[in-house]
Order: sequence, then structure tokens, then C-alpha cells
Amino acid sequence: MVLNTGKKSCHKYRLDRLLNFIKNKGSQNLIVLKDENIFYLTGFNGKNSGSLLLITPGKIYLLVNFINLEYAKRSVFSKKINIIEYRKNKYKKLIEILEGYGSGNAAIEGKSINAADYLSLKKLLSKKGIKLKEASGIIEGMRAVKDAGEISNIRKACRITDIVFTGMINAGFDYFRGESEMTLALKIENNLIRSGAGGRSFDMVIANNEGSSMPHHAATRKKIINGLLLMDFGCRHNNYCSDITRTIFLKKFKSMDKFRKIYDIVLQAQKLSLENCKEGIMGKELDAIARRFITKNGFGDNYHHGLGHGVGLEVHEDPVVSVGRENVLKENMIVTIEPGIYIENCGGIRIEDMVLVKKNCCEVLYSSIKGPIIL
Amino acid sequence: MVLNTGKKSCHKYRLDRLLNFIKNKGSQNLIVLKDENIFYLTGFNGKNSGSLLLITPGKIYLLVNFINLEYAKRSVFSKKINIIEYRKNKYKKLIEILEGYGSGNAAIEGKSINAADYLSLKKLLSKKGIKLKEASGIIEGMRAVKDAGEISNIRKACRITDIVFTGMINAGFDYFRGESEMTLALKIENNLIRSGAGGRSFDMVIANNEGSSMPHHAATRKKIINGLLLMDFGCRHNNYCSDITRTIFLKKFKSMDKFRKIYDIVLQAQKLSLENCKEGIMGKELDAIARRFITKNGFGDNYHHGLGHGVGLEVHEDPVVSVGRENVLKENMIVTIEPGIYIENCGGIRIEDMVLVKKNCCEVLYSSIKGPIIL
Repeated sequence: MVLNTGKKSCHKYRLDRLLNFIKNKGSQNLIVLKDENIFYLTGFNGKNSGSLLLITPGKIYLLVNFINLEYAKRSVFSKKINIIEYRKNKYKKLIEILEGYGSGNAAIEGKSINAADYLSLKKLLSKKGIKLKEASGIIEGMRAVKDAGEISNIRKACRITDIVFTGMINAGFDYFRGESEMTLALKIENNLIRSGAGGRSFDMVIANNEGSSMPHHAATRKKIINGLLLMDFGCRHNNYCSDITRTIFLKKFKSMDKFRKIYDIVLQAQKLSLENCKEGIMGKELDAIARRFITKNGFGDNYHHGLGHGVGLEVHEDPVVSVGRENVLKENMIVTIEPGIYIENCGGIRIEDMVLVKKNCCEVLYSSIKGPIIL
Repeated sequence: MVLNTGKKSCHKYRLDRLLNFIKNKGSQNLIVLKDENIFYLTGFNGKNSGSLLLITPGKIYLLVNFINLEYAKRSVFSKKINIIEYRKNKYKKLIEILEGYGSGNAAIEGKSINAADYLSLKKLLSKKGIKLKEASGIIEGMRAVKDAGEISNIRKACRITDIVFTGMINAGFDYFRGESEMTLALKIENNLIRSGAGGRSFDMVIANNEGSSMPHHAATRKKIINGLLLMDFGCRHNNYCSDITRTIFLKKFKSMDKFRKIYDIVLQAQKLSLENCKEGIMGKELDAIARRFITKNGFGDNYHHGLGHGVGLEVHEDPVVSVGRENVLKENMIVTIEPGIYIENCGGIRIEDMVLVKKNCCEVLYSSIKGPIIL
């Protein structure tokens, strides 16, 4: 595998690989819609910009609206990518370009276009003798295995996350005193940015006590008090994400003994999965290792989410590591391992690390302690 | 128009209205996928949760995964909504339920399902004798006209925004000293939350000097210096958004005279649009008023985005106020009016207000001064 570290060369390498792939599949044109896929191939990061990348065997076109035009010009890696401004409707412009090539076929990212737009585009193209088909996951599949530049960016994002988490634990209970779930989330983001991050990678889950029984709890204005504190957060570095969860104990509280026991089960389940994570194992196998352990200990009904997911330009991306997933983990994939146990209306424990999959093991990308931490 | 202020009653009223609408259209079942639409109808705010609301003439089902189950139970407005947990695949569960009703038809939100899922669901349902068609914009159309409870929430979000902006201007240049675009964004969010907001409504555009020439500039680590400072930000209150843009002048700088002239043109263009905004005017007519004025003053080529958009549960929603839009503004719609002029590689000016459309005029929802402000 070619390890890309240079910025321009990596985009070019990816684009060349994709062009080869398309050629071998007998397709003529590929329409890329997902922002992260466009960035991966061109260097233009038009988040929610509604941009479109058309890859033809001869030419590459990036269709952007006025709002993103100047930024696109500044950020694409090569002058060979034709940046075209569309007004109102990018698909109208796309049809014009494809028409110029005469009849043929085009594949479009079917997971990134909505059904209404797809059906209307298909009809319009068909009138011009162009057959549209949907193709999903081509570039996501490439992105699942990280190259050296990507790994380096993700390592940095994880290091920043470590610094902030460790600083928080070192500061002790004072770090949390007087904060609400909401202001704590902001304080953490502030620390992430001051430590070098480009911002948070998702809306953090900061959940005190009963809030923690909901895996995706939205932070509230409730002041943080003694008890469980689940923190699921992450940051971006050069557009690459980190994602970590730690659940800590703030002082003593009523159901502490119960949750200390649950903590140990989750921690042990995570450890077992980490020990077995390596190239060749299937997502569902790795998931089953943690799930079996949790079930054996009587909490199978309190853990219904998947074990993990890929992390990269998106905080959730391929590969999914979960029940029924027959996908095989490969070297240089980066995934989370995050079992949890949730007691309705009471509280929950989740412990999450990101790991780099290797030939015979995996490397945990965090050094943040897992304790149990009692402040 | 019925003005809803109570929380439960408003969800019920909306659901009843929708059921009537569906009945009149001769549809049997409606599948709702957009998070904001599900919240609008049920009170469950499962952002990015992949939930699904199935509305049948007799029963209503909310399909959520384990992660959102407890939160859904806590937040739906009525026990008559059947909350069902799906594992892996919500569409599998949906098919099971629809199958129970025997053959029939179902409409699905075509703008909120991706083409790949739509095609596969259509095929599976067709095997069971159920015809799937795509229907877009039904609930978005209802949401475009706000009820009293919504207006009140949006007013509050705008008031919080005003408080933070005004505080910033009153603090003078000191507010910005030493901050980068990125840390300023965080400082503003912090102030919004401490002033009562539930968080930012979108990733802010904080753009100093040449950054401001890109309407959707992403904040950088660059320290803020003398010159233009464009700030496009907003917050949420009870899930409802605000959205404001002000461009201010920080001390003196080289191209100041040029941008002072441009500022007056943008301000005048905005004023003309505000004066003409009322029930009955078409989106494209209102857009043309600002655009003509900017073009007449020689900057038509520097203003390519639309004049405005609806704001509510989403920061961008119906109605769109732009070129070619023949939609007619109605009483109690809430839209932005935000013309701008952008000079490539140099800087840009945008001024944005949110307004409540009335019978014979519109009400500007902000009291933040538009100056020009020179700090």
C-alpha cells in the first residue's frame, strides 16, 4: 500500500485509483455528491454546500454554487479540476455537461441523493439517452482503510482529545463545579480548540446521572451534581475526527456500588474486544465478544447499540462493527470499540476508545485513563 | 387560523390537520422521515437519530432504535403514539407493520430518503402488494407558516441573539482583542448559552477581512485584526432557530472607504426589501428588489446568492426567497432578508435580519443596530 503523506499527492493518488476502479467496472461517468468524498478526492471541503463532482474518463468537473466558488478555487489540489459555478440547480448544469459527451451511462452515489431528486434526474437524463444508475459505497470503501496522512491527522485529533480529558481529570472535581451539562460541553470544546483542534467533531453527549441512560442524551442546563458523568466527545484536526467516551464517578452517591460493578463489566467487555481486534476478524465477531460477556453478566437487555464504527472524515463511517455485519476488518482501518450498559431512568456506563487495526493486534489511539475514575 | 400556544395541543392540532390532508388526498399511509417533521408532529426531537413516523388512518407508530428509545418515551406528546424499537433496520420493521394492514399504498418523504433505500424499500413493499410513492414537502409546507407557540420561541431566540450582539458592540474593540475567528465563535456561543439559548443554530461564519468574501467562510485560527468583520450566527430556543448577520468595521484600514460605500448599498438594498415584504409578494419579486438596486449600483456580479430563506426548526427551511421562486409569502411566515456584496480575495458585506411576514408589512425580529458600526 502506498503511504501518502503529501497533501496534493494523496488526492491525486486517490483520484487515479478511483478512475482505474471505474474503468474496470465499465462505467463511463461517476457523480459524487457526499461532501467528505469530494474532499477526499479534491481537497475542497464544502460541508453542506450541495456541491457535485463529476468524474469522466477525460475530465473532472466540480460544480459549486456562488457561495462556495472562491473557496473551491482556493482549495482544490489541481488546476485540472474544472470548477464550474451553477446557479439554482446543479443537476441542470450536470445534464448540460453530460449531454456534451453524447449518450452513455452515469453512476451516482445513491446514498447521497434523495429519492425525489434521483427520480427526476433519471427521467431528464433518460430523455438525452443517458442511463443513470445508483452506486453506493465506492469511495466510502476506499476511505475505510486509512493512508499514512490520514492516520497522522487522526492520531493528532486523538492526542488533543487526550490532553483535554487528562487536564480535566487532573483538575479534579473543580473542573465540573458550577457547570451545567451545556456549559461543560462548551468548556471542553474551548479546551479542545485552545489545544489545537479545529472544533468539536459532533454535538457532545454530556450526561449526568439519569441522562446517561440515554446513549445520545442532549446536554441540558441542569447543574452537574454528584453521581455518574458520561462524556462522549471528540474534535477535528485537518478535518479528521476523534471520538472518545469516558464515564466517571463524581464523589459518592446512592447507587454507586451498583454502577461500580456495572463499570467493571463494561471495562472488561471492552478489554476483551480490544484484545481480539485485528485484521481478519469480522465486525459481528468482534461485536459478539463484548456482547456475550455483557449478556453472561446479566445485562444483555441493557446494551442494544453496536460495538463500534469507523472514524475518519466523518465521525461515523465505514466499517460498522455490529451485530450481523460480515465485513472483515483490514489493516489501517480505524474504528471505535464502545460497549455500554444502560439502566432506564437511572444511569448508564459507556467506555469508548478508537483503535488502529493492525495485522495481529490493534493499537489504542488514546492514553486517557479508564480508571475507574472517582473524583 | 388557530393559534396554538400549549405544547401538547399544538402537536395534536398539527397531527389532526395532517390526517385530514392525507385523507383528502386519498392516501392511506404516510411515512415521515425528517427529524424536524417528526418533532413538529410528536414532540420527539431525535436529531440524526434515523427515526421513522408512520401515520395510518387508525394508528400512529414511531420507530426508533435503542439509542433513542427512552428519550422518545419521555418526549412524545401522547400515549396514543406507539413507540416501537427497531434493531438494525427500520424499514424491515416498517414492512412488517404495513403488511398487517394488507395491501394498500404508502407515501414517503422523497426528499428525506436516499435513492438507494427508496428503491430497495419500493421493491420489498411491492412484493407485499403495497405501492410506495414519494411525496415531498407536505409537512414542510405546514411548517412554513408559524403558529403562535412557534413565533414566541423564535422571538425569544432572536431576543437572545440581540442581547449577545448588543453586548459585544457595547464592549467595543476589547471584545475582539486577542481572539481568533475560531475562539470568537466559541465566545459568542458561550454568551448565547449564558443568555438562555440551547446552543448555536449552525456553525457560525466569523470572517475577518478577505475571509468575508466567501459567504460561508469557515472560521480559522487567524487572529482578528483591523478591517472588516462579518459575523453570521444564531442560536436555538426550544429547538427554534435564530439567524443574523452583521458586518462591522474594526478601526481604520486601507480599503475602508470602498467598503463603507459598499456597506451603504447593501444596507439600502436590505431596507428596500424590508419595506416591500408582506403577505402576497412572491419570493422572486422580493429578491428582485434588492438585486436590482445592487445591480444598478454596479455590483450585480458580486451578489449571487438568494435574498433569504425561512427559519424555524431548521435554520434553512421553506419558503425560499430567491430568483425564480414563484412562491407567495403568507402571513406568519418567518424569513431572512440578507443581501450581500462580495469582492473576491478582498472582503464582503452582508446584512441579515429575520422578519415576521404580516398582512401589510413585516416585523423585523431584531433590534441589533446596523450602523454602520465602526469600533
